Amino acid sequence: MADIADVTAAPDRRSALKALFHPRSIALVGATDNSRWSSNTYTNLRQCGFLGPVHLVHPVREVVHGARAVRRLSDLDEPPDLVYVMVPTAAVMPVMEEVARLGIRNAVVLTAGFGEVGADGVRLQEELKTLAAAHKITVLGPNGNGFINAPAGIVPYGLPVTLPLRSGPIGVMLQSGALASTAVSFVRQHAMGLSLLCSMGNEMQVTATDVLDYLVHDPHTRVIALFLESIREPRRFLQAAREALAARKPVVVLKVGQTAVSRRTALVHTGALVGDDAVNDAALRDAGVIRVHSFEDLMVTAGFLGYYGAPPGRRAGVVTASGGASEILADRAAAEGVELPDFSDATRARLTELLPSFGSAHNPLDVTGYVVVDGSLTERALGIAVDDPAFDFLMTFVSAPTDGADNSRLKAGWEALAAVAARSPHPVYPATQTLQDISQEGAAWAEALGLRPLGGIEHGLSALGRALWWKEAAGRAPLETTTATAARPTAHEWDGRGDGLRGVLGEQAARRVLQSRGLPLVPSRLARSGREASRIAAELGGPVALKVAADALLHKTDVGGVRLDLRHPEDAEAAYDDIVAHVTAARPDLTLDGVAVSPMRAGGAELLVSVTRDPAWGPVLTVATGGVLVEILQDRALRLLPVTVADIRQMLGELRGRALLDGARGGVAADRDRLAAVIAAIADTALQLGPRLSVLEVNPLYVSGREVEILDALLVFEDQDAGAGGS
Amino acid sequence: MADIADVTAAPDRRSALKALFHPRSIALVGATDNSRWSSNTYTNLRQCGFLGPVHLVHPVREVVHGARAVRRLSDLDEPPDLVYVMVPTAAVMPVMEEVARLGIRNAVVLTAGFGEVGADGVRLQEELKTLAAAHKITVLGPNGNGFINAPAGIVPYGLPVTLPLRSGPIGVMLQSGALASTAVSFVRQHAMGLSLLCSMGNEMQVTATDVLDYLVHDPHTRVIALFLESIREPRRFLQAAREALAARKPVVVLKVGQTAVSRRTALVHTGALVGDDAVNDAALRDAGVIRVHSFEDLMVTAGFLGYYGAPPGRRAGVVTASGGASEILADRAAAEGVELPDFSDATRARLTELLPSFGSAHNPLDVTGYVVVDGSLTERALGIAVDDPAFDFLMTFVSAPTDGADNSRLKAGWEALAAVAARSPHPVYPATQTLQDISQEGAAWAEALGLRPLGGIEHGLSALGRALWWKEAAGRAPLETTTATAARPTAHEWDGRGDGLRGVLGEQAARRVLQSRGLPLVPSRLARSGREASRIAAELGGPVALKVAADALLHKTDVGGVRLDLRHPEDAEAAYDDIVAHVTAARPDLTLDGVAVSPMRAGGAELLVSVTRDPAWGPVLTVATGGVLVEILQDRALRLLPVTVADIRQMLGELRGRALLDGARGGVAADRDRLAAVIAAIADTALQLGPRLSVLEVNPLYVSGREVEILDALLVFEDQDAGAGGS
Repeated sequence: MADIADVTAAPDRRSALKALFHPRSIALVGATDNSRWSSNTYTNLRQCGFLGPVHLVHPVREVVHGARAVRRLSDLDEPPDLVYVMVPTAAVMPVMEEVARLGIRNAVVLTAGFGEVGADGVRLQEELKTLAAAHKITVLGPNGNGFINAPAGIVPYGLPVTLPLRSGPIGVMLQSGALASTAVSFVRQHAMGLSLLCSMGNEMQVTATDVLDYLVHDPHTRVIALFLESIREPRRFLQAAREALAARKPVVVLKVGQTAVSRRTALVHTGALVGDDAVNDAALRDAGVIRVHSFEDLMVTAGFLGYYGAPPGRRAGVVTASGGASEILADRAAAEGVELPDFSDATRARLTELLPSFGSAHNPLDVTGYVVVDGSLTERALGIAVDDPAFDFLMTFVSAPTDGADNSRLKAGWEALAAVAARSPHPVYPATQTLQDISQEGAAWAEALGLRPLGGIEHGLSALGRALWWKEAAGRAPLETTTATAARPTAHEWDGRGDGLRGVLGEQAARRVLQSRGLPLVPSRLARSGREASRIAAELGGPVALKVAADALLHKTDVGGVRLDLRHPEDAEAAYDDIVAHVTAARPDLTLDGVAVSPMRAGGAELLVSVTRDPAWGPVLTVATGGVLVEILQDRALRLLPVTVADIRQMLGELRGRALLDGARGGVAADRDRLAAVIAAIADTALQLGPRLSVLEVNPLYVSGREVEILDALLVFEDQDAGAGGS
Repeated sequence: MADIADVTAAPDRRSALKALFHPRSIALVGATDNSRWSSNTYTNLRQCGFLGPVHLVHPVREVVHGARAVRRLSDLDEPPDLVYVMVPTAAVMPVMEEVARLGIRNAVVLTAGFGEVGADGVRLQEELKTLAAAHKITVLGPNGNGFINAPAGIVPYGLPVTLPLRSGPIGVMLQSGALASTAVSFVRQHAMGLSLLCSMGNEMQVTATDVLDYLVHDPHTRVIALFLESIREPRRFLQAAREALAARKPVVVLKVGQTAVSRRTALVHTGALVGDDAVNDAALRDAGVIRVHSFEDLMVTAGFLGYYGAPPGRRAGVVTASGGASEILADRAAAEGVELPDFSDATRARLTELLPSFGSAHNPLDVTGYVVVDGSLTERALGIAVDDPAFDFLMTFVSAPTDGADNSRLKAGWEALAAVAARSPHPVYPATQTLQDISQEGAAWAEALGLRPLGGIEHGLSALGRALWWKEAAGRAPLETTTATAARPTAHEWDGRGDGLRGVLGEQAARRVLQSRGLPLVPSRLARSGREASRIAAELGGPVALKVAADALLHKTDVGGVRLDLRHPEDAEAAYDDIVAHVTAARPDLTLDGVAVSPMRAGGAELLVSVTRDPAWGPVLTVATGGVLVEILQDRALRLLPVTVADIRQMLGELRGRALLDGARGGVAADRDRLAAVIAAIADTALQLGPRLSVLEVNPLYVSGREVEILDALLVFEDQDAGAGGS
């Protein structure tokens, strides 16, 4: 629970980061003409507009990068606000001790050779961390390239930055060094600007979540783009993401790396359902974070949201001079939930008057190749379309200028478009047809005219689709952040120890545990002979199901251990013998406890409900269309715990098989309130069983009308106490 | 069957297109300084290296584009090989009559106002077509921009082309005018070159399939990229695509537009399975065509295959200077079936020696940020990795030069990379990290060094994945084209009339039709009273199923018309009354024929098998995991007819639910040979029912061991004779 304490200290951390990112003087320690890192950093600080002093420190050289250098930090007249440390690994501690003595409070450590390289490095990093904590030094890195504060022109950053460096609304944080340069190039080639870019390094002290939290509260940042390798403080990360949502500041994430399924979870059906990184998806979506899967989508989506915000609605009017491109766009729009209603009659009449006789006034509009003759046709048609109340926004295409060509006609088109956009009652989003650089000439037009062309149909429509999703998520989120969980009926943390429970608990043992905690189970009585099975069946009346009872056996059906729908007591007797014969033949090693006899349940729907422990995110609830088809259906909804009953109802609504709950094909419709309440109770029970619980899997949970019953269940515990996972 | 005749004439068509695309002299008819089309075309012809005469024809002006013009074609000393016609619509016929008189054999008609604008235009186009046919004039268009023959420098093309125009292995055909320019820009910005680009227009005479067929046989073309709006000659198109596959020349298609489900198909379950453009997918995949969904993927995939061909295998070694980018690549590789085996021990030892101490020698390799100090690190590491037999190919990243920056260091890196690639025993594929222009400077390096950087991780890995898929498809295809269908046991064309059959045929009527054609059906006897139902049940012995018999009723379960698994004759009697009561209450309008009694089938697997008529592709076979879950499972395989029994077995293997056929969960494994034979017989029966059949749907087809039985079926006929569909 350490990160909960950290959240309380968030304002302090924010002001520490504000100081880190806004130094008035900087010393480059280890500056030398021999190092490209040194020359890059010095050039970046000088070229990007940093106005304060840049001190150069080198133990021997008197002149570095053509300027005077000092031998040590204490030779400076006054200590700098920030040190940028690029000395050899062994020299880092002595330098940082001097930093501590001088009372310097901010450091970027570029030097590698710490936590990333094994036991010695880890020890060295621990020493550095202790020193920094004792002297309240804020340290970015080690093994990180630094940051770019574009609005302030402060660029203590070790890789080359090609000018112009534009400032803008996009805050970027990356758990990668080299990709930071990819991001810098991308924004440069697409007329976007940065509020802050921060390359994390080892996160010894300043963490990815700290920077996210800073960006959420940074007034220059209107959208946050993150490249993540691992989320080390998941609960705190989600808290910051929810604050971003409450502040209506979109967070776009490219998260790499697959979540491995634990050995324990792989044993059970849930393992086949959450085998990819579905848990990451569920966690991020739950916090209103936009997840993308390519660097292109990361930057195009962030750029769109940063410059335009979310669209007012889903209805797009599209005006183009390319029938083909408008068809590609129409397919992509359909896939992204962007609607293309047709023009209103008045608009159609005005457009028909404008178009050549071989044109056709429908949305998406192709003004035809006659645009070759009349270069203003597209913009004039757009000028008509913007007045149509059928649309929430307009889209049109622009071309990027070609270096070395005569672009004057193109520029006139951009200017006409900007004029239409300026007087339009709805937003107008220009796009290039494919993702392409718009050149520095195009970027200059873009800045001057306030047009930020979306990066192609493919990635641009992805951005629109995600922006519309985000808008709905933000609309549901409270405007103010709440940490209260009072409204949440399920527990949010393991609160028990599962005393005495070990290993895999098959059906009978699991039934005892779940029954003792008040969950509804189908009646079940153990028979130890065919005659006893027959007697129990007669007492139960109606059809029965027989299942072999042997706790070490996980997949009973596979060895002939299950017989369903036995309608007469004598059938039960025969089935008993049959089951014992089959199971004994298949698994002679097993000790059978007998055969369990239950009343048959049929005609309703069957779900799988499980709680598993994700190594990063902690307890995860899975609800799936269940029974024997569960792996084939692959129809599931996931949520991190805690959840509300409303969340569970929403999960049920996400299932493709939800029609089965509504009594499709002649069944009785499920009482969804009752069902959601039982699922919530299952989730709570899992948490009460403590952090050693790996899996609680109910499959099937039978539901028909108000009748909701666990027909079979399984519990898996770690043999050793594990960490609480995700907290 | 008109297109079969066309196939016979294919060599004639090919030589006609060869003449069209290789004129030695060209006349621009309607040339004028007032038209940008005219100036574009004239400039393109002059700048791109066309060496023959370009004649300008205008009825009044004597000087056009600074050169002498003539008034009419007959004023020329000798008739040109090709006329490029851009006169007003009304003047096209007179010009073309003159073309015919002069014996000119090739024309591009840019002018619009023909088939695309309603009845008058259609009439005019028919006149033009008749004239062209009578005089054997090959006409591209009307309403098309022309073509670009890059290797010959022949560019009669109406939109601007920015130089340099590179020739290369990519043949492009587009059913769109403006997108052609997008393609031209894309290849220019990514150091690719064209063999031919053809913008189709109205396809009055030269069709998209003609151009595809030409490109298949064009020696300059090593890969074919198509933008398709509609496939007008589907069977002939597939024939050409299969010839491309046999010739090992990949075809990449961006096909827009969703296939609408016909009203008739929407009635039945199949409608919910093939509602999107799944039939296009199936048809193209079946012919070995690579289908993509973005213009970026179209061009990046074509470029990769054109320059590198398919990779020798799936095992990639990756050498980068960016840990983050290599992680993005690893995720994409996993999604595309590209394997990343680790380095062999010997390679790891050599790499460990090379890397700084904080590096780690694993695939994908990050040579670390030390590359800032040692600029040759990546290329030296790659030089080690290329010798590792663990890999089929290598990947690495390159950066594009930045306009206005000092790119000398970058260029040295490209040169070092090219040197490694030249001596590597495996192909080396360089890629940029994101899709970006590589600038004309980069393109010059690319040409000189033989490096064609893949367009980013996202689109580049899509290209690799599709290339690997194509390679497998090509490996299965015969090296020589066969038109023989002898090996194909199902019919390939409707061969009956379904005489007398109209509208919707429910279960009982459908049974009669299918039974008369020898298909295996579950026994079924009609009861007209509860007592009769009871008697039939007793005679059948064992559990029975009762289903209401009323031909106008499609969804019997929904109105309580089905009762299953009745084990005693008295249960059947009660069920009869129950069914009649329910159905009569729900649908008082219906006339019931009685209630059908069948032996109960349970414990096996259930499939849906249907043949529907796609408006473009003709008869389509769908096999799906069936029964009441069919819509929820959405688990289907499609093929155009005809199919072989081997195709059907492959379809079964594509189902997610194939485990059900293998007796998962205690069932009896299906005899797949028997099952495939029955499905083939169902497909043949559908075709024998003639072209008015809209739908033959069997759901479920019950299978358990060798027992394969139709439990329920439905036939839907058009009331009017329809075309044969797809032929």
